[in-house]
Amino acid sequence: MKIALAQLNYTINDIVGNTTKIEDAIQRARSMGAELVVFSELSVCGYPPHDFLESEEFIQRCNRAVEQIAKGCVGIHAIVGAPVLNLNPQGKLLYNAALLLGQGKVLSQHHKALLPTYDIFDEYRYFEPASTFEVAIVNGTRVAITVCEDLWDDQPVSRGFARGKLYNLSPMEMLAKQNPELVVNISASPFSWDVEQRRAKVFARHAMQHALPVVSVNQVGGNTDLIFDGASMAFAPNGSIAMRLKRFEEDIVLVDTNALAQQKAVEPAAANDKIALIHDALVMGVRDYFQKMGFKKATLGLSGGLDSAVTLAIAASALGSENIRVLLMPSQYSSQHSIDDAVGLAQNLNVKYDIVGIQPAFDALKSSLSPLFDGLKEDLTEENMQARVRGTLLMAISNKFGHLLLNTSNKSEAAVGYGTLYGDMNGALSVLGDVYKTDVFKLAWYINRTAEIIPVNTIVKPPSAELRPDQKDSDSLPEYDLLDSVLFRYIEEQKSVLQIISEGFDAATVKRIARLVNLNEYKRFQAPPFIRVSVKAFGFGRRMPLVAKYTN
Amino acid sequence: MKIALAQLNYTINDIVGNTTKIEDAIQRARSMGAELVVFSELSVCGYPPHDFLESEEFIQRCNRAVEQIAKGCVGIHAIVGAPVLNLNPQGKLLYNAALLLGQGKVLSQHHKALLPTYDIFDEYRYFEPASTFEVAIVNGTRVAITVCEDLWDDQPVSRGFARGKLYNLSPMEMLAKQNPELVVNISASPFSWDVEQRRAKVFARHAMQHALPVVSVNQVGGNTDLIFDGASMAFAPNGSIAMRLKRFEEDIVLVDTNALAQQKAVEPAAANDKIALIHDALVMGVRDYFQKMGFKKATLGLSGGLDSAVTLAIAASALGSENIRVLLMPSQYSSQHSIDDAVGLAQNLNVKYDIVGIQPAFDALKSSLSPLFDGLKEDLTEENMQARVRGTLLMAISNKFGHLLLNTSNKSEAAVGYGTLYGDMNGALSVLGDVYKTDVFKLAWYINRTAEIIPVNTIVKPPSAELRPDQKDSDSLPEYDLLDSVLFRYIEEQKSVLQIISEGFDAATVKRIARLVNLNEYKRFQAPPFIRVSVKAFGFGRRMPLVAKYTN
Repeated sequence: MKIALAQLNYTINDIVGNTTKIEDAIQRARSMGAELVVFSELSVCGYPPHDFLESEEFIQRCNRAVEQIAKGCVGIHAIVGAPVLNLNPQGKLLYNAALLLGQGKVLSQHHKALLPTYDIFDEYRYFEPASTFEVAIVNGTRVAITVCEDLWDDQPVSRGFARGKLYNLSPMEMLAKQNPELVVNISASPFSWDVEQRRAKVFARHAMQHALPVVSVNQVGGNTDLIFDGASMAFAPNGSIAMRLKRFEEDIVLVDTNALAQQKAVEPAAANDKIALIHDALVMGVRDYFQKMGFKKATLGLSGGLDSAVTLAIAASALGSENIRVLLMPSQYSSQHSIDDAVGLAQNLNVKYDIVGIQPAFDALKSSLSPLFDGLKEDLTEENMQARVRGTLLMAISNKFGHLLLNTSNKSEAAVGYGTLYGDMNGALSVLGDVYKTDVFKLAWYINRTAEIIPVNTIVKPPSAELRPDQKDSDSLPEYDLLDSVLFRYIEEQKSVLQIISEGFDAATVKRIARLVNLNEYKRFQAPPFIRVSVKAFGFGRRMPLVAKYTN
Repeated sequence: MKIALAQLNYTINDIVGNTTKIEDAIQRARSMGAELVVFSELSVCGYPPHDFLESEEFIQRCNRAVEQIAKGCVGIHAIVGAPVLNLNPQGKLLYNAALLLGQGKVLSQHHKALLPTYDIFDEYRYFEPASTFEVAIVNGTRVAITVCEDLWDDQPVSRGFARGKLYNLSPMEMLAKQNPELVVNISASPFSWDVEQRRAKVFARHAMQHALPVVSVNQVGGNTDLIFDGASMAFAPNGSIAMRLKRFEEDIVLVDTNALAQQKAVEPAAANDKIALIHDALVMGVRDYFQKMGFKKATLGLSGGLDSAVTLAIAASALGSENIRVLLMPSQYSSQHSIDDAVGLAQNLNVKYDIVGIQPAFDALKSSLSPLFDGLKEDLTEENMQARVRGTLLMAISNKFGHLLLNTSNKSEAAVGYGTLYGDMNGALSVLGDVYKTDVFKLAWYINRTAEIIPVNTIVKPPSAELRPDQKDSDSLPEYDLLDSVLFRYIEEQKSVLQIISEGFDAATVKRIARLVNLNEYKRFQAPPFIRVSVKAFGFGRRMPLVAKYTN
């Protein structure tokens, strides 16, 4: 069958806009000669709609949009994703459905059975799992229509205390009994830098096991913290990838499912694509955050250090240099080379910058507090005050000129709380908050791959917050190589302190790092959304109690 | 049977501490003559443990604690709650279990079948639902042991687009077939000001339907945003409440299930208890946040207005006046009566206060920014700068002296974004963030019920942020009576704009309020945890996408 894979970028709750996109793609698929055009999971409303699903009016708008799209499906079939009512008087109110449209109407509903409810997923919050499965007939071909997780009944597992079989049934096994000739999967599978290989493995296994072509359409685009990378794929019955759609861009491609075995096999993204993938994901994440929020312009604080340099380069790619205005906010502890490096970067990127010192406001605050602080020596309080003056200046730019503030903290800092709440933790969006410092270095070299955009001095000098004389990050923290190795095991792999120590790490260091991670839940609770590029980002997908005994 | 209901205050992950509490209570129950002592849901680890449940080491510690507690159960039985492994190789890794302990060992496991996954609940994230049910035998009596939601198979529904029967089975109907003589329910049911009546209704229905006594033990204590009010209850077979344990306090009470029908019936909390209940809930919420975090001292900004006054009175009840130190931070726009009212309150409560002006820092910031802002008139930017100077001063007190900052915003403000991010939205915990302004007024009168603690002028004067000359809240917002009426329908009742207008509210006002709520998701995303006292609080239980089309 000739199938158009329509990988589109939806805005949540923009049902009118999403419908227009879908209708335009159906026209295009028709002109390409498609018999069937496939869209991604919950395409009509965008994924994840979260608690919009608790609004009756939202569900009604989705249903009306589906009916309108169906009217245009004459001489062509389409599969779209939408929430539909569960007509059974018991159970959750909704199903997460794939809807087969054709002959101007909804021909059949196919409900999702396996409802991911882990990490960033909350689907059982809204949906009743399907218990019946029916193969659809499209122009005489028997098609097994599945929704995302329904093909992930046995998942690759990346940590010890987890299992591949989270569910008690396998929708594809049920459908296979009805002799399908083709498998279609509609999905909204968020990006992490290693996800493409895992997806390919899961789909290839089903293709091989049932000796059937598998066509999977993924959502593309950024929705707050979540990046959907697209990279939709078509698999030949032997499990090879016959076609992979663009990453991080909308794409519509026609495949002939009878000819997939003749295609030259495509390889999924490899481990050494990691930094390029993260870069492109972050650019899309920033771009879509602004576009979908209706903003064009950004600001950030440029310190001359690595994190703000990489954030600025990514923001410039996403929004255009002309839409960015940065502040340099030196203190008495800032080195001249930091100022020079920051100016150099702003000039390289052709970004407007201003230099606003923090000393007058810092002095005024200290003087106002001097009757209360009399006789006490300076400590972290004064360091935080400097960071908060900077945060206040940046928010003033944001308020006065309508520039959204980008946060420049990285994942290593967010993990151990090396940052000032209401200071450098300010921002509408955290660009690097899911990127460890060691990878931020690699991102900087990647950004410089063809020219020196980020001054090399920014990359090679020892990291410092410059909040007291001769301060270095390594005064307070382990070296980043060590820190990030321990953090990866603790956060991504969810290993216990004892397990990490048993791998040969110094016990005191591991305990100290774990303690810092635990004691800083309160800071992360108030942090901006972190664009997610790993399998375990801080934020919605990692739900630790704020108040708990953390000192066992 | 003689049953001790042990309603205790657990700390999440303090498995050693919780175990000691449980063992002490077993001793006490024994001395009271109990045959069985019942603890609350997940008592061994505290509820909600969130992603601790993904840690193997955490589960192992829970299991060891259960074994230790069981060893002490000789001559007495106990029912405790703990996560246990699902030994089936498919499905989620854990069950949420009630464990019957006796004869020095675990006699039987009773798994939860109905896993609440809505509002603040995430149970299907971790647990496999039970599919088999077995009545337990305790000293010859057949006991139906149920875990919380298992008795909520048909729930009272408070909004239109929702249903009472969220599940496809009724555990109690299955257990009833095995002729139990008694129903035990262990629960962790969070407080909202109207929950007690709903609980009573649900349990009474089961008591009557099966003509059995029902004994339910609830958790007590504050865990970050969630308040567990205790108020455990025992029901006679006719559905009357024979016994209700204390609200907001630990309590252990012995009941004779054969004599419940002879007890004088207790009434559940009534609608006119609302303000007193909210007050006591907030006091416990503040107290437990500090105790469980290991802090004693608090600070806040006292403006002379209503919200900070009520917050301070609650904090003083929770922590003691001697542990609080407040700042008065007048600006050029602050009225003398505000300063007088603030001083009066601090003196009434015997709380240490300092006056620190914001003008010097505000002037320094303005002067630093003047080259950039030259020729532009003052606007919201300058109002926010004042709020951020105050936030910075308060955080300096917090940093220097180790006082946690309490946030003083109310729910009406949080809803419409009437507050400055990184300014007056600062704080470790939002005390009033789930209390509408109209109820904050009532809380103030309640606090003054025996003496004028809060100066009456603070309560009766028109609310103002005092960030520009003669500013009143009503310049920017509808009057609070109207605002809160619309907000309650939009937030708690989840009604659509059209539904609210159809109730007779002005269309433009309703649309404006809904728009403000929607456009301020980004602010609430970075707000402190809000102590939850309503059925729908901002925060974890209300998950709206940050980036979405909100302007339909």
